[in-house]
Amino acid sequence: MQPNIAAAKAALAHIEQDENPATIRAKSRDFFWYSPVLKDAMDHLEADFVVNPKSEAEVIEVLRVCYAHDVPVTTRGAGTGNYGQAMPMRGGCVMHLRHMASVREVHPGRVICEPGILLKDLDAHCKAHSGQEIRMFSSTWATATIGGFIAGGSGGVGSVHWGSLRDLGNIIRLRVVTMEEEPRVLEFRGEELARVSHAYGTNGIITELELPLAPAYDWVEIFVATKDFMDAARFTDKLANQDGILLKLASVYEAPAPFDYFTRVKPHIEAGDTLIGLMVAPHSMDGFLTFLGRHPEARMIYRSDASDWDRTPGPVFEYGWNHTTLRALKIDPSITYLQVRYGFPEHLALIEKMRDALSPEVLQHLEAIKMEGKIAFAGLSLVKFTTQERLDEIVRMHEEAGAMIFNPHRYTLEEGGRQSADKRQLEFKREADPKGLLNPGKMVTWDTPDFDYAQMYRYAAMTPKPEAAE
Amino acid sequence: MQPNIAAAKAALAHIEQDENPATIRAKSRDFFWYSPVLKDAMDHLEADFVVNPKSEAEVIEVLRVCYAHDVPVTTRGAGTGNYGQAMPMRGGCVMHLRHMASVREVHPGRVICEPGILLKDLDAHCKAHSGQEIRMFSSTWATATIGGFIAGGSGGVGSVHWGSLRDLGNIIRLRVVTMEEEPRVLEFRGEELARVSHAYGTNGIITELELPLAPAYDWVEIFVATKDFMDAARFTDKLANQDGILLKLASVYEAPAPFDYFTRVKPHIEAGDTLIGLMVAPHSMDGFLTFLGRHPEARMIYRSDASDWDRTPGPVFEYGWNHTTLRALKIDPSITYLQVRYGFPEHLALIEKMRDALSPEVLQHLEAIKMEGKIAFAGLSLVKFTTQERLDEIVRMHEEAGAMIFNPHRYTLEEGGRQSADKRQLEFKREADPKGLLNPGKMVTWDTPDFDYAQMYRYAAMTPKPEAAE
Ligand SMILES: Cc1cc2nc3c(=O)[nH]c(=O)nc-3n(C[C@H](O)[C@H](O)[C@H](O)COP(=O)(O)OP(=O)(O)OC[C@H]3O[C@@H](n4cnc5c(N)ncnc54)[C@H](O)[C@@H]3O)c2cc1C
Ligand SMILES: Cc1cc2nc3c(=O)[nH]c(=O)nc-3n(C[C@H](O)[C@H](O)[C@H](O)COP(=O)(O)OP(=O)(O)OC[C@H]3O[C@@H](n4cnc5c(N)ncnc54)[C@H](O)[C@@H]3O)c2cc1C
Repeated sequence: MQPNIAAAKAALAHIEQDENPATIRAKSRDFFWYSPVLKDAMDHLEADFVVNPKSEAEVIEVLRVCYAHDVPVTTRGAGTGNYGQAMPMRGGCVMHLRHMASVREVHPGRVICEPGILLKDLDAHCKAHSGQEIRMFSSTWATATIGGFIAGGSGGVGSVHWGSLRDLGNIIRLRVVTMEEEPRVLEFRGEELARVSHAYGTNGIITELELPLAPAYDWVEIFVATKDFMDAARFTDKLANQDGILLKLASVYEAPAPFDYFTRVKPHIEAGDTLIGLMVAPHSMDGFLTFLGRHPEARMIYRSDASDWDRTPGPVFEYGWNHTTLRALKIDPSITYLQVRYGFPEHLALIEKMRDALSPEVLQHLEAIKMEGKIAFAGLSLVKFTTQERLDEIVRMHEEAGAMIFNPHRYTLEEGGRQSADKRQLEFKREADPKGLLNPGKMVTWDTPDFDYAQMYRYAAMTPKPEAAE
Repeated sequence: MQPNIAAAKAALAHIEQDENPATIRAKSRDFFWYSPVLKDAMDHLEADFVVNPKSEAEVIEVLRVCYAHDVPVTTRGAGTGNYGQAMPMRGGCVMHLRHMASVREVHPGRVICEPGILLKDLDAHCKAHSGQEIRMFSSTWATATIGGFIAGGSGGVGSVHWGSLRDLGNIIRLRVVTMEEEPRVLEFRGEELARVSHAYGTNGIITELELPLAPAYDWVEIFVATKDFMDAARFTDKLANQDGILLKLASVYEAPAPFDYFTRVKPHIEAGDTLIGLMVAPHSMDGFLTFLGRHPEARMIYRSDASDWDRTPGPVFEYGWNHTTLRALKIDPSITYLQVRYGFPEHLALIEKMRDALSPEVLQHLEAIKMEGKIAFAGLSLVKFTTQERLDEIVRMHEEAGAMIFNPHRYTLEEGGRQSADKRQLEFKREADPKGLLNPGKMVTWDTPDFDYAQMYRYAAMTPKPEAAE
């Protein structure tokens, strides 16, 4: 351990730390291994020490001490991100917020809480309090934190109704601590929210959140099967455009992915079945069944409120979003994925085009979401990985067709996004993290303003791989 | 009074009846006088007697007795319809459901109630019970009944989020009594709902309703002004497409209507100001204000949660939907209106076109609503009435441009709708009202299946006007 890091660790001795090397290694990792590219680049990364603050005051102390000793600080919610967001690129301190998990206030339509609470615990609290729940959640609801979702996620279950986290109104207020000689505590609303939301903790640490709530219902979880893929895509698109039928999830999984990868669903379908996963409000079930009755091409094979399956499939949302990739990977380790944006109004045509060109090498997995008021699709396509060159070619084919790709095989904010500087985030980092110690290596434009995105970005100061270091 | 009618009245003597002639006349009328055309045609209509049943059992008795004596029955909620829906075209019995106003059950997301409850009382009950309210309501919330809304209305405040009453999921279940020798009680769900919803009580009487609920919030009511009309239309369209900002109302009123007709708003605007009326969820106010900040062309002049106006304008929704027409009519009795459908995606272009062609003879009043998943506009245009010919020409101009018109100057279901038979309603009337006694004269295709819609339909059996009868 470098002396400055050791000094910081010692100066923080009164705050809870993890000493077990296995724990330190575990807390230095996330789901980066989804990507063969990131797996290769980041597998060796490890924090020098892990600190578990209990309060905003302790967060401030961690940041002040690490600032004084020039020690990088990478914040950790639960480490379920899958671009290595929570991994310490050049060691130093991992700050784990699991002890900051209280709910402060619940009001009609909003909640105020700490960042380290699990999504499921936050929902349980709001539901018990007043029949409410958060508008949207990552499919890692059972394991991820709200702070990590806001700082690292984009949307998920609920986005079919409420759009994405970045949309105005989906975050009300964030309280943020800076990493300066004397850390400041700031409150952001409105336009200022974009500075730190989805910024991977590179320019401030969120210590309190105020978020909108929606009513909590006993969502009916449903699987519907079709013989034809485009039938399923059209069915889902049309269903999600039914204004009176309240949905929380509408996913499409191209055959044979459901048969091959969804073991508990397999006994109930055939290899040629495309599957649709849904969450429908109980009071919308009549409307849904009426809609279904108009679509003989679609058959309901499962509903959670009246199931005759021997083994429950578990929550249907744990088949959606990035859980689809996880299930596929578990059965076929050569699978990886891409994130695609199929924008309205070309979404269905684009999906058909990409599928015609690439299935079954690339299997369609779609999530219906609202984009600027219209139902469209996010694609989390399952890709049979062969070579990096072929993956790049597949990306190019999408982009040439007009389907925007958010590359999940990159660890920087810009490369996973629109490949350009987010000025608001960059400018705020200048103010809030003058030494560049917060989650270093994740903001290209901080380190290399003139980067051209032709190749994958390689953070120069990243801890070298052991063999390279030898 | 004809002997058969007198006999029915006598046979129903044990059920509460109104005997005061002024009451009978009042309960034979609705807001038909909005339309100079309907005013002329229907002003003389009057029931022979008015009965006020207290229960479904009493409704059954009214229908059985009137069936036996061949007496027409026109059901009345609160008589706020404005196409003469609740007016007895050939006398007979008006059955007023005001005593059937109980709420039976409230659950998360749904309510079961009787038809005669006022919308405002239903909302108050659901809010007190569990912070819920109905998804959408007519702007006559304070005076209209839920049964009348479902049987006679189409949508309203809330349609910007939930679409129209006819959309799947916006009605769960209706319990309906038929008018046969032995009335039957039927329960309708799903596809069957279309038989009796928006059927003006022509083929069955609704005695119980099950409806979806939404969370009740302390909606912030807002007025925003712009100098340019199309700026206001675009602002409203864009705002209503913000997925994270929860709205309940978004109306646009072309200048100088707000200045001329909205007396309490007048001191705060100029004649050239186009006005936007909004209801925004309190927890969406930050998002709304951020959106507003991006639109310097729009200035907020009123918000109900922080008003500095000397006199409150009252509920903002009472400026919207058909209340706009009411306010205009009170000040300028030569005003009438049209109902226009500006469908997505041409809605803004169509609106601009009609305005260029017709303003200020026709002033735009727009309500943002969801239609098949997309924000579009319902127009309730204010028309300076000159002649019937000119009104017909204005209707034709809209239709030629592709803006569908729902003619509010007609008393039949078909003429106020798509000018064709609703087979489901017609077929159910054959079953449920074999003698054609329920609200006679309102279903063209029942009386005159081959009607060609070239001229206004004239119900042959309608009580003749006094002068004609003399
Ligand atoms: C199977 C699977 C499914 C997934 N599904 C989805 C999905 O549906 N939608 C989605 O958006 N994502 C999804 N993800 C990605 C990820 O799980 C989510 O973004 C998740 O919410 C992250 O939460 P976390 O607590 O694990 O955050 P972490 O992984 O611990 O952190 C995420 C990022 O936020 C930063 N961070 C954490 N807390 C703070 C804080 N308080 N202040 C500042 N920065 C902070 C971290 O430094 C890191 O950069 C999925 C991942 C997996 C593995
Ligand atoms: C100022 C103004 C604003 C308005 N705004 C709107 C609006 O925003 N949206 C909208 O949709 N309408 C609107 N309307 C029209 C009307 O107010 C609504 O449709 C209202 O909900 C009707 O309710 P009511 O109780 O007055 O019904 P009524 O006028 O009494 O009845 C309406 C129709 O339903 C039938 N009916 C009533 N109860 C039953 C029953 N239990 N079973 C079977 N049939 C029955 C009647 O016979 C009649 O044909 C407006 C009208 C006015 C005057």
